[in-house]
Amino acid sequence: MPDPRLSALPTPCLLVDEAKMKRNIDRLSAQATALGVSLRPHLKTTKSVDAARYVLTGGNGPATVSTLAEAEAFARVGVTDIIYAVGITAPKLDRVIALHRSGCNLIVLLDNVVQAQAVATASRSSSIAIPALIEIDCDGHRSGLTFDDPTLLDVGRILTQGGAALHGVLCHAGGSYGAVGVAAQAKCAEQERLAVVNAAEALRGAGLQCPVVSVGSTPTAHAAQDLTGVTEMRAGVYVFFDLVMAGIEVCCIDDIALSVLTTVIGHQSTRGWIICDAGWMAMSRDRGTAAQDVDQGYGIVCDSAGVPIPGLIMVQANQEHGVIARRPDFKGAVPAIPVGTQLRILPNHACATAAQHSGYNVIPETPEATLMNWPRFGGW
Amino acid sequence: MPDPRLSALPTPCLLVDEAKMKRNIDRLSAQATALGVSLRPHLKTTKSVDAARYVLTGGNGPATVSTLAEAEAFARVGVTDIIYAVGITAPKLDRVIALHRSGCNLIVLLDNVVQAQAVATASRSSSIAIPALIEIDCDGHRSGLTFDDPTLLDVGRILTQGGAALHGVLCHAGGSYGAVGVAAQAKCAEQERLAVVNAAEALRGAGLQCPVVSVGSTPTAHAAQDLTGVTEMRAGVYVFFDLVMAGIEVCCIDDIALSVLTTVIGHQSTRGWIICDAGWMAMSRDRGTAAQDVDQGYGIVCDSAGVPIPGLIMVQANQEHGVIARRPDFKGAVPAIPVGTQLRILPNHACATAAQHSGYNVIPETPEATLMNWPRFGGW
Repeated sequence: MPDPRLSALPTPCLLVDEAKMKRNIDRLSAQATALGVSLRPHLKTTKSVDAARYVLTGGNGPATVSTLAEAEAFARVGVTDIIYAVGITAPKLDRVIALHRSGCNLIVLLDNVVQAQAVATASRSSSIAIPALIEIDCDGHRSGLTFDDPTLLDVGRILTQGGAALHGVLCHAGGSYGAVGVAAQAKCAEQERLAVVNAAEALRGAGLQCPVVSVGSTPTAHAAQDLTGVTEMRAGVYVFFDLVMAGIEVCCIDDIALSVLTTVIGHQSTRGWIICDAGWMAMSRDRGTAAQDVDQGYGIVCDSAGVPIPGLIMVQANQEHGVIARRPDFKGAVPAIPVGTQLRILPNHACATAAQHSGYNVIPETPEATLMNWPRFGGW
Repeated sequence: MPDPRLSALPTPCLLVDEAKMKRNIDRLSAQATALGVSLRPHLKTTKSVDAARYVLTGGNGPATVSTLAEAEAFARVGVTDIIYAVGITAPKLDRVIALHRSGCNLIVLLDNVVQAQAVATASRSSSIAIPALIEIDCDGHRSGLTFDDPTLLDVGRILTQGGAALHGVLCHAGGSYGAVGVAAQAKCAEQERLAVVNAAEALRGAGLQCPVVSVGSTPTAHAAQDLTGVTEMRAGVYVFFDLVMAGIEVCCIDDIALSVLTTVIGHQSTRGWIICDAGWMAMSRDRGTAAQDVDQGYGIVCDSAGVPIPGLIMVQANQEHGVIARRPDFKGAVPAIPVGTQLRILPNHACATAAQHSGYNVIPETPEATLMNWPRFGGW
């Protein structure tokens, strides 16, 4: 029996299952408490004030963002402790200073001397000691300094002596997205912990302050066994989870709280294809599971209640067309799915899929309650 | 010497080169004139009223769209002849009827009996003969009926007898995106032409009307040698072009009018990486050139004037970080690119990259004139 709340929605659109989302949030909160660190959620996945209220301590607590547009949007609604976790550049410092003047303590991230000099210069000229974290590399994934790189102390001194505030060190174990299973991810978490703890000790050993020691990625946050020396952890996609996270066993398929609602618009019977109105514009072009053991195509196909239909994935996507077909290795029967049927597609990567939409249709945990609508924003 | 108009832009952001865009538009207009067909541009690439004025005949002429949101946005500014080129479903017909009542002749697309019945029912109940095109398949790419499928006549009769208006037939040779070079693409164009001309003849032979015979894809539109029996052609991405189109020789790299402006935020010198602030959120996850002879990664790296820097591509992308490095096979020297340098990245797929942004910064063809800002929209 189709859900009349969903039948009334224009497709394609985003759905969030509030009960699953709350379960995911509770799981990581309990983990942070058990490990004795504070949790600083990354709001880049949801980019929604409504969703942020669920994850921020007291609804307004410490946050991480990936763009100044996010920082500005969350500052406007009262979030005052934010890490902007992408390397800063000089032209962006005017907006950083404006945020500080509006009462938001925005912490910037950097890993080189040019950035440190720019932050010091801006601190002096604005008379605001801009707080900065030094990015530490633990796995060669992207940015950051290793703890034994002499630049670490140079950057620390430029900040401290130049009038900025050396806030601490931060590491993101991006390599953990390639680690399958909790044991492998726990090793990544320990590598991440050691990298920042060693960097903090190097700074302190040189007479520099390092109050904050920040780690985080969704896999390491869930797998960490011990975070001695760490003060906080960050994670983002855990709120929704997705097929990439399920593929490395951080969650189950049933934990995925985000899906795209779509409608069947046709068939190509000779090829066994079902054509639906969710293409890559609705799903994103993210094919994160392509490199995993089980390639989920553009997503797992569920009925409109969110139950996976065995054997069916979205095998291709054009801009506004999705092609649903059986998995290459599936031998069972697949049901007939007539034109007009609503389906849900579980995404490869929640951050990327959500970014294609301007809002969420949220199915409340209270049965049969009216759907909630949470706007989301984008931009830089 | 950096362009002060670009230095003032926050990065990442979209740039359009107006002169290149106009050159691309003129090229396809001349081709349509030479072939004796009208050109019905697809507005899904630009999704911008300002950009649409350049491609629509007289600024308001016939158009193609991929969503009802596009149809509504263009109808509001006076475009009255629009094909909605994605298979219709019953719940969307209320908005189709509303568009007709507002004075926009929106033509829907379908390829099956269920859709035809829905359009007929809506036509009768609204007393508007909704015009419908039957989608024809020429290459097994996606949707559509072959000319000899008996469903073709069934659908035509349901529309005609049911009170809708059988407007004609439409084909999109999506398979042409895999054809390299003008000779291969000309074959696709002839296959596309034959598919619709045969379908039109089948309908006419059964006593049904078929005034419109529509073909189109950017590769076939440029390569077609003869369009006898065709009334109009459609294309979208030709306005900007992109690396996928360059990879199959529909255009040159120098024709690409769209790029993403980014700023260098750091380096990983041991790996030869340059880190910039355009990740997949700015570029999209589209990796269309991965399947081509030359994989361009997430894009070709240019200096801020738009000139490609030999050997450099974006090899990886995280949400807000792009990793620039030398191509695996490049043996030459690459220049040092300091933190703070602005670069431009040419995208794999203009439709996907543009969709990640809320507007275009347009460099006017008049030298040193002020940048134009063209908003774009999304949604369904």
